[in-house]
Amino acid sequence: MSKISDTAIVGIGQTEFSKNSGRSELQLAAEASLAAIQDAGLTPDDIDGMVTFTLDSNDELDLMRTLGMTELNWTARGPFGGGASAATIQLAAAAVASGAAKAVLVYRAFNERSGRRFGQPDPNGYTSTAAGPDFHFSYGLDTPAKIYSLWYQRYLLKYGVTNEDLGRYVVTARAHAATNPAAWYYGKPITLEDHQTSRWIVEPVLRLLDCCQESDGGVAMVVTSADRARDLAQPGVRVAAATQSHRKGGLIMFDYYREDLSEFEETRTMTERLWADSGLTQNDIDVAMIYENFSPVVFLTLEGHGFCKRGEAKDFIKDGHIGLSGSLPVNTNGGLLGEGYIHGMNNILEGVRQVRGTAANQIKDAKHVLVSASRSGMILGPL
Amino acid sequence: MSKISDTAIVGIGQTEFSKNSGRSELQLAAEASLAAIQDAGLTPDDIDGMVTFTLDSNDELDLMRTLGMTELNWTARGPFGGGASAATIQLAAAAVASGAAKAVLVYRAFNERSGRRFGQPDPNGYTSTAAGPDFHFSYGLDTPAKIYSLWYQRYLLKYGVTNEDLGRYVVTARAHAATNPAAWYYGKPITLEDHQTSRWIVEPVLRLLDCCQESDGGVAMVVTSADRARDLAQPGVRVAAATQSHRKGGLIMFDYYREDLSEFEETRTMTERLWADSGLTQNDIDVAMIYENFSPVVFLTLEGHGFCKRGEAKDFIKDGHIGLSGSLPVNTNGGLLGEGYIHGMNNILEGVRQVRGTAANQIKDAKHVLVSASRSGMILGPL
Repeated sequence: MSKISDTAIVGIGQTEFSKNSGRSELQLAAEASLAAIQDAGLTPDDIDGMVTFTLDSNDELDLMRTLGMTELNWTARGPFGGGASAATIQLAAAAVASGAAKAVLVYRAFNERSGRRFGQPDPNGYTSTAAGPDFHFSYGLDTPAKIYSLWYQRYLLKYGVTNEDLGRYVVTARAHAATNPAAWYYGKPITLEDHQTSRWIVEPVLRLLDCCQESDGGVAMVVTSADRARDLAQPGVRVAAATQSHRKGGLIMFDYYREDLSEFEETRTMTERLWADSGLTQNDIDVAMIYENFSPVVFLTLEGHGFCKRGEAKDFIKDGHIGLSGSLPVNTNGGLLGEGYIHGMNNILEGVRQVRGTAANQIKDAKHVLVSASRSGMILGPL
Repeated sequence: MSKISDTAIVGIGQTEFSKNSGRSELQLAAEASLAAIQDAGLTPDDIDGMVTFTLDSNDELDLMRTLGMTELNWTARGPFGGGASAATIQLAAAAVASGAAKAVLVYRAFNERSGRRFGQPDPNGYTSTAAGPDFHFSYGLDTPAKIYSLWYQRYLLKYGVTNEDLGRYVVTARAHAATNPAAWYYGKPITLEDHQTSRWIVEPVLRLLDCCQESDGGVAMVVTSADRARDLAQPGVRVAAATQSHRKGGLIMFDYYREDLSEFEETRTMTERLWADSGLTQNDIDVAMIYENFSPVVFLTLEGHGFCKRGEAKDFIKDGHIGLSGSLPVNTNGGLLGEGYIHGMNNILEGVRQVRGTAANQIKDAKHVLVSASRSGMILGPL
C-alpha cells in the first residue's frame, strides 16, 4: 500500500517565465523557492529536504546557504529530465511518508533560453545513455525536434493524424495561455491558420508552433504531510498518488526500439499504478496537465491514460473535449507551448492551483487533477 | 516517526576491486547488481526501483535493459559523492517504506583508477558548486588531497595530532585488509615505519599511505521490506536508521567556511538523528564502518559520533580500540584505504556481512553496525 497519499503540496512559487531572465539560475531557484515556502506560511528553516532534477545546475548547499536553512536530512535528484518531472513529487512525498523528512522543497530553475537552449543542435551530440554521443547523431539527429519526430511519425501514419490535427491542440493551448497572465503568450491566441502557416521544423511532423517554448524561469513547491497541511496557510493539495514507469526497451531520447512506436507504453503502465494507488479512474479526473515538449505528446498521452481509444485523440480534441468548457480541460495554463517550458514543472503548479481553486483559467469544482509527464505522473486532489 | 526501520538489505554483490577492470562501467554495474539480486534469491524482474549517485555514469535504463527488468517505478540519485554514500540506502528505504517500490537495487560502479582518477589534478578545476571551477583552484588547490588537507590541518594543530597518529589508523586498516581476500591489499599489512617512510603527498598532513585507493569496481545491494526479508535467501539486515545531514555553511570540497574547522558538524547532527530514530546509542554499536578518503576523516568521525571526546581519537586508536579485538572494531574490511575505494559503498556491504556473520574478519556476535560517511549514515542490525 502506498503511503504517498498521506502527503500534500502546501506551497507553490515561481518567477516570471521569460526569454532572458537577466539573473543566475541560482537566483531563479532561490526566488521561486522562497515564494513557495512563504506561500505555505513556512520559513526556510522549516525545510529539511530538497529534491530537484539531476539536470539542475543549482547545488542544494548553495540554495540552502542562499535561503538560510539550518539542516537538510534528505536530498535526492530525479534522472531523465522532463519526462520524469512528476517523479520529483514522488521523491519528496516518499521522504515525508517514510519519516525521512518533514517538509521537502522541490525546485527546478534554469536559463533555458538565454543560456543553454535545449532546442538547438548540440555540437557534442545528444546522448541517449551516459556512454556518450549517440550514434544516431551521425545521421543528422542533432535536436530534440528531429529525434522525437522520427517516432511521432509512426503514430501519425498509423492513425492518419495530420499536422492540422496537431494544430487543433496547439490552438487550444494558446487560447488557455492567452487568458493566463503568467503565460509568455498571454494575450496572444492563434488561429489554426496561424499554426498551419508557421514554418516546418521537421516536415511532415512538426511546425514551429508544435514545439514547446524555450524559457528562463524557476518554479518550486513544498511537500509535507497531509496532517500538517491542514494547519498551514494555503489549502493543502493531496498527492493522491505519484509514480514513475520505466519499461524495458525504453530510451529517453532515441526511443526507437520498443515493440510498438505508436503508443506510450510507459504512460499506460504508469496510469495503471495511479488508478490502483488512488482508487480513482479516468472518470474521476477533472483536469489533465500533460507534458508536451511537442504537440504529438498530448495525443499519445491522452490515449495512454485511457481518456480515449488509440488513434482517437484527434477526434477527442477536435470535438472540444480538452477546452476550458470541455469534458476534460487539458493544460489550462497554456501548457509548455503556451505558458513556458520549465521542464514540465510549471504544469504541476497549475494542477495545485486548479485543486485550490485559484487558477487563472479555473475549472469550476475541479477536484482531481492528473499531472502527467509520459513516464511519471501524479494525481492531485483535496485533503 | 521514521518508517525506514521497516526495511532491510537482503542482497549484496560486488565485482573484484582492481586497478584496471578491463571492462566498461556498465558491465561492472551489471555484474555487481546481478550478484546482489541473486544473493537475495530474487530475479531482475523482482526489482522495481533503482538508486545510485548523481555521479554514476550508468544510466538506469541501460542497466535495466542489460539485466532484463520489466518495469521500474522508482529512480532516484543521491548528490554529493562519497560523503553522502549512505544516503543511497536512505533513498531506497524511503521508497520501500512509502510503498513507492517493493525492491530497490542500489548500485555504484566505476573505473576510477583506469578511467577518470579522482585523485589526479583536474585541469578544469574541482568545483565546489555547480557554478564552475572553484576560485581556490587558482591557488593551487587542484586535488582532493590538497583541498582537504587545508582543513584537516586545523584539527591536527588544535589537538596535537601527528602524522604518526594518523599512521596508527592506517596500520590497523591495512591489517584488516591483509586478512580480507576481497581487499586489494590482501596479504599486505604494513608497519608504522612503512607508513612513516611513505612519501609526503601534502606535508605535513598526508603521506601516500594516508590516501584511499583509486579503484575500479562495482558494488550493489537490494533493499526491500523487513517483512519480505524474512522469506528471502539470506538473513535480512534491518536498516534500523538512515539519514543525511547537510548544514548551513557547509561545502563539499572547499569546506573552509564553517564555525569550527576542527569538527565534523554534520557527523554530530547526523548521529543525533540516528540515535533518535533507532533508539540506540554509541554503546549499542558493535562495529563502525567509516568513510575515509583520507585517514584524518576517521579521527573526526569517531569524535563526531561520540565514540570518544574531541581530540581523543588518537588515544582511542593508539589504545587498540578499533582493532578486530578492540571495543569498537572499525573498517573490518580494510576500509577504503585497504579494501578498495568504491566511493564508500563497499563499506556498507561489509556492514551487512558483519550483521549476517559472514565477514572475512567477522566480529563475534556483531549485532549493530554503524556505517558512516561524514554527512550521511545508517545503522544496520538484525531483523
